[in-house]
Amino acid sequence: MSSSSEAASSPAAPGDRLERVDTPALILDLDAFEANVAALHAYAAARGVRVRAHGKAHRCPEIARRQVAAGAVGVCCQKVGEAEGFAAAGIADVLISNEIVDAAKLARLARLARRVRLGVCVDHPDAVRALARACTDADARVDVLIDLDVGQGRCGVVTVDEVLALAREIGAAAPHLRLRGLQAYHGSAQHLRAPAARSQAIAEAGARAAHARDALRHAGFACDEVSGGGTGTFAYEAGSGVYTEIQPGSYALMDLDYRANAPDPALPVMRQALGVLVSVMSVRSGHAVLDGGLKAVSVDSGPPSVRLDGWRVRGVSDEHTVIEPADARGVAADSGLVPALELGRRCVLDPGHCDPTANLHDWIVACRGERVEAVWPVLARSASR
Amino acid sequence: MSSSSEAASSPAAPGDRLERVDTPALILDLDAFEANVAALHAYAAARGVRVRAHGKAHRCPEIARRQVAAGAVGVCCQKVGEAEGFAAAGIADVLISNEIVDAAKLARLARLARRVRLGVCVDHPDAVRALARACTDADARVDVLIDLDVGQGRCGVVTVDEVLALAREIGAAAPHLRLRGLQAYHGSAQHLRAPAARSQAIAEAGARAAHARDALRHAGFACDEVSGGGTGTFAYEAGSGVYTEIQPGSYALMDLDYRANAPDPALPVMRQALGVLVSVMSVRSGHAVLDGGLKAVSVDSGPPSVRLDGWRVRGVSDEHTVIEPADARGVAADSGLVPALELGRRCVLDPGHCDPTANLHDWIVACRGERVEAVWPVLARSASR
Repeated sequence: MSSSSEAASSPAAPGDRLERVDTPALILDLDAFEANVAALHAYAAARGVRVRAHGKAHRCPEIARRQVAAGAVGVCCQKVGEAEGFAAAGIADVLISNEIVDAAKLARLARLARRVRLGVCVDHPDAVRALARACTDADARVDVLIDLDVGQGRCGVVTVDEVLALAREIGAAAPHLRLRGLQAYHGSAQHLRAPAARSQAIAEAGARAAHARDALRHAGFACDEVSGGGTGTFAYEAGSGVYTEIQPGSYALMDLDYRANAPDPALPVMRQALGVLVSVMSVRSGHAVLDGGLKAVSVDSGPPSVRLDGWRVRGVSDEHTVIEPADARGVAADSGLVPALELGRRCVLDPGHCDPTANLHDWIVACRGERVEAVWPVLARSASR
Repeated sequence: MSSSSEAASSPAAPGDRLERVDTPALILDLDAFEANVAALHAYAAARGVRVRAHGKAHRCPEIARRQVAAGAVGVCCQKVGEAEGFAAAGIADVLISNEIVDAAKLARLARLARRVRLGVCVDHPDAVRALARACTDADARVDVLIDLDVGQGRCGVVTVDEVLALAREIGAAAPHLRLRGLQAYHGSAQHLRAPAARSQAIAEAGARAAHARDALRHAGFACDEVSGGGTGTFAYEAGSGVYTEIQPGSYALMDLDYRANAPDPALPVMRQALGVLVSVMSVRSGHAVLDGGLKAVSVDSGPPSVRLDGWRVRGVSDEHTVIEPADARGVAADSGLVPALELGRRCVLDPGHCDPTANLHDWIVACRGERVEAVWPVLARSASR
């Protein structure tokens, strides 16, 4: 084995115990993951909505395959590169729940659409025309969702007139483009802390989507699909009578930002399945240092927490997380209260935000209790394109 | 070409113009990069200190080779995986400016030390003994720096007694271990905004390092090297008369956090060389959306800025950056003030923090003006181990 390839090899092998795993490493608690997937699918099935698992949360084809095996109709994702990766892994129905406007990307998208059922979102007539050209050139058929801004204030169109104008553009490009319906994802509702606030935001989103859907049908267009909903709100979309499909991703992994939502007592609670395994690399009288930092765990939604009784996270830098003694309420405490940590001891960081954390790793180490069951590749960083 | 491999290919080819580069892509302005490297080396050479370029900032072997060609004695880095990657690329002198305590990592480190000159830092007697065992088993020779905490409050020892105890442990493991001197990096001084505050912090760090160095020599130990200093403070270490080697990394690339430091008028100003090229993917009346977000640019030191007159960054999410009209002072402005952006138009985000941003990409697109000159690979994500 060459020196350069040693680091590129996977951090663990099936059968390893956790304390043998090379760190930092992304780990998945399979019991929690499977419980989350089962709970989501049972909830959706009872309400008659389809589940399209969001692959952007993990970018891991093996996780996507398990979500499809559990009943998901396929995956959604944000990038052509992700769609290519999931399709190559055998996912036969992929929705790019995002706008693609670049000619080179559209050419890749059209080529991919000859191999799998592929959908994409649009919010501009120019983008529809560019998509139509690419699909005509490749003789490909693509499903199109009109992206409706239902409160997020990011991409998407706002008015019924805009929706109808896009529907006409899509219709003009038949049979290469087929209008499937509406993308109506309300991203900023996902982390409203109170269940009543989340429920209210989705009630409004559903009303906007229903209004656009009815306008499309009244004008003679098809609108078979209204897709949206994430981990913070999927139950409200599922019960809306408007949404036909939900798109949760984080539910399978979980993170601190979703755990900070006040739970709705009527809904399933998802368990923390994702973690970042790290090792103690330095010990001092008042603190200790772990061997993973900003390049192993994302802090855009706040710092990680550490699963280690008597300790809390003080700070995170590029390659280090500093932890300090804390009392049971998590308040910084006198270091005399806790025993010193041993160099090399493994512990787990719970990430603030699962999606960009998974994106920092090449491998997900899937564990059953303290034992590694499998090691799964994550798509290359270039899936961001 | 298989569908899955298209995304893994590089985002550009030499000769491409910037508007053809697939986005999001990490770009390097070669004129600015070369000016930064020249300024740093001229400054250090005039003061008789060596430059050991910090490879953690870019993780790019080709950049490291150019830094060595410009006069750096070698690179430093934080991880065994980085050291393996730089060594495989031909860098013959590598310092791991960090603690390594895991037996499997130490075995890799010892194997690598048979191929290149390798140094590593220690702050605990147990770690010295584990390192000595690994080097004895591999019959390898490793240079050791005692990590002295000169104000950072992270890793490192504090007292002269601890320094001497480590020196004795290192001495007991001769010839496999050789005490080279002190690692005395003051990380938290790098972003003190006032030059006087940075200068004062390094004056104190240098005094602590000199005290430890003198104690080592008084006790009969060698201390040929005092290494430390980053982009925010290298001039003060270089002029201290204590430090023999400086370890700047970000200086070659730059980011908003370093640009927020008030400059010292006596010192060279580094230019922004790194950027993240993105495309306009959605336009609305009051804002536009760019096709790179948290997976393309790190926000741990604050959001990126956008190089686009009349616009500023409103927010960053996983795969999107939302920009809005702004007046010349950067204050949100009426959208009537700026012309609408065209779908697909390229623009550049300046990252808040260069190190974790480079870590999000597989490739660095090196540009001369608007034209791509070369495309360089970044080490795999598993270099984090």
